[in-house]
Amino acid sequence: MNSQTTKTPRNVERTKNRQILLASRPSGEPSPENFELAETEIPTPGPGQMLLRTIYLSLDPYMRGRMNAGPSYAPPVEIGEAMVGATVCEVIESNVPNFHPGEIVLAGAGWQDYSLTKGEGVRKIDRSFGPISYALGVLGMPGLTAYTGLLDIGKPEPGETIVVAAASGAVGSVVGQLGKIKGCRVVGIAGGQQKCSFVKEELGFDVCLDHRQPEFAESLKAACPNGVDIYFENVGGAVLDAVLPLLNNFARIPVCGLIAHYNDAELPSGPNRVPLLMRAILSKRLTFRGFIVLDHASQFPVFITEMTAWLREGRMKFREDLTDGLENAPRELIRLLKGENFGKKIIRVNPEPA
Amino acid sequence: MNSQTTKTPRNVERTKNRQILLASRPSGEPSPENFELAETEIPTPGPGQMLLRTIYLSLDPYMRGRMNAGPSYAPPVEIGEAMVGATVCEVIESNVPNFHPGEIVLAGAGWQDYSLTKGEGVRKIDRSFGPISYALGVLGMPGLTAYTGLLDIGKPEPGETIVVAAASGAVGSVVGQLGKIKGCRVVGIAGGQQKCSFVKEELGFDVCLDHRQPEFAESLKAACPNGVDIYFENVGGAVLDAVLPLLNNFARIPVCGLIAHYNDAELPSGPNRVPLLMRAILSKRLTFRGFIVLDHASQFPVFITEMTAWLREGRMKFREDLTDGLENAPRELIRLLKGENFGKKIIRVNPEPA
Repeated sequence: MNSQTTKTPRNVERTKNRQILLASRPSGEPSPENFELAETEIPTPGPGQMLLRTIYLSLDPYMRGRMNAGPSYAPPVEIGEAMVGATVCEVIESNVPNFHPGEIVLAGAGWQDYSLTKGEGVRKIDRSFGPISYALGVLGMPGLTAYTGLLDIGKPEPGETIVVAAASGAVGSVVGQLGKIKGCRVVGIAGGQQKCSFVKEELGFDVCLDHRQPEFAESLKAACPNGVDIYFENVGGAVLDAVLPLLNNFARIPVCGLIAHYNDAELPSGPNRVPLLMRAILSKRLTFRGFIVLDHASQFPVFITEMTAWLREGRMKFREDLTDGLENAPRELIRLLKGENFGKKIIRVNPEPA
Repeated sequence: MNSQTTKTPRNVERTKNRQILLASRPSGEPSPENFELAETEIPTPGPGQMLLRTIYLSLDPYMRGRMNAGPSYAPPVEIGEAMVGATVCEVIESNVPNFHPGEIVLAGAGWQDYSLTKGEGVRKIDRSFGPISYALGVLGMPGLTAYTGLLDIGKPEPGETIVVAAASGAVGSVVGQLGKIKGCRVVGIAGGQQKCSFVKEELGFDVCLDHRQPEFAESLKAACPNGVDIYFENVGGAVLDAVLPLLNNFARIPVCGLIAHYNDAELPSGPNRVPLLMRAILSKRLTFRGFIVLDHASQFPVFITEMTAWLREGRMKFREDLTDGLENAPRELIRLLKGENFGKKIIRVNPEPA
């Protein structure tokens, strides 16, 4: 629904492989100079390999972390390497058993037109489930993130209150709709009136608040007359500060993302609020639990069964924010990190096959 | 074991009820002026009531929180009221069915010689389990705190590494010995060489480190060559800062106490380390979970069965730090909050009956 597109690319027959490389590591907000567009030969698959052409590239906040040196839950992208990312691809040539030219697959091909793979971690996409790009969103990593984080860690009970930030985004929008399916009161937080209207009117959240409004903290309190039982943490920063005093005893906080901090070059100035956070954890018996969707991959089959049913029944809606052209990926990632996307951000790198 | 006592009180027959009242609320560290010793008549039990005489009064870090105004998990002590606290008492007169003069009970009589109760929450102490004062320690609230926090939230697996601060204290000492019983590597943290020697040599921890040493953070890293799987949080502050970088993926942090902060009048100066903490929670998939022993009272029967067996077998040791005289309770609470106790702090208010 509500797909946005700037233009449809011509079905060009490429002769080169375009790649976007990490040119330098950003300090704070990334800039276009941190990326470099390179052209290489289209590689030829060897024995046991297949050649993929990227159709859709997913842009996600975690990519900012990969641009840093130093350890995280995944290794960084090295300078001069292609940026990593989940992709929907077409199989062009295959020496891998069970994969055939023309098939559409989910792969981690990164920011480039063509890539080789031995097929590890590559999954065929069932086109009957919906648009193939959904494999990067509601039927993929963001959807499974929302599903496992809310259900396994949040453990919603009917009548409880859920607060979710980045409510119009790929993960937050699914969290909130799942909360409604589970019988909860759902309060979304988003940036700007247009997103808030969408979240409330199209996605069916009970309330959606604009965190840019000066009275945001008071509005949030008023929107949660029974306190907050689950805070699905996508954001950090001022939103966490506003939610903390509203949390009920035994509230659960799945920690999924901290987009407010991904561009931080240093810690914010004081005071040090850690004792306040720890005292809330202690006296309210809170559970803060971080999770990464890869740890929950075993739930994919049950997730996909439930989610496709909800989509079919119209109980789950999903907005994509589509931009054409690999060359626009750096600009769009920079915008995403500022909250300037509206829905799941996807780059159409090459056209869908007919 | 290792009980310390300053003197044995004479078996006086009191004619008045001494009470220690909250005279004023402290800002920061409490001082003797925040307390007031008052004398009232010994009350007479009415129908359905019994009169208790306090033998032992438990001093615990949570009492600092009760001296503040404002909400916590329990209401504050009001100005002019007797300080609250767990006690071991003798039944002097009883109009409550099933309670008889001469019986020894666990009660919440607070900082006073005599008190009336209807018997709600009062529990008879089985003297075959050990010294009756153990009902305030290893067989009481601190023991159950260690037991439920480590086993239910920490979920130790053999071979894992546990770090526990305040390791010679009532809770920490039990946590570490339980960790050894469960087959873990246990690293204690305590203040001063005497406590560290006791923790290692008497309690059998693998290592105990003095957090006052300048090289503490490096020593802790060296003591945890495989990282930290469980950090039992009693303390907060600099100890948490030192442990955070050592935590392994999927580490569990039962948040039981924050004694480093109980005297804080304001938040510490910056930078604000909350983003650092939240990023660790996210990227290492940590679980921080606060708990209060009262929420786990249903586990008392199984706890008491296991703990008395471990005591009998010599696998669990428990040190008490005994001071005579109700009038010394304010001074001793102030010392406790500075870590100047050595073992479970108990005030002997009146002598044990023969």
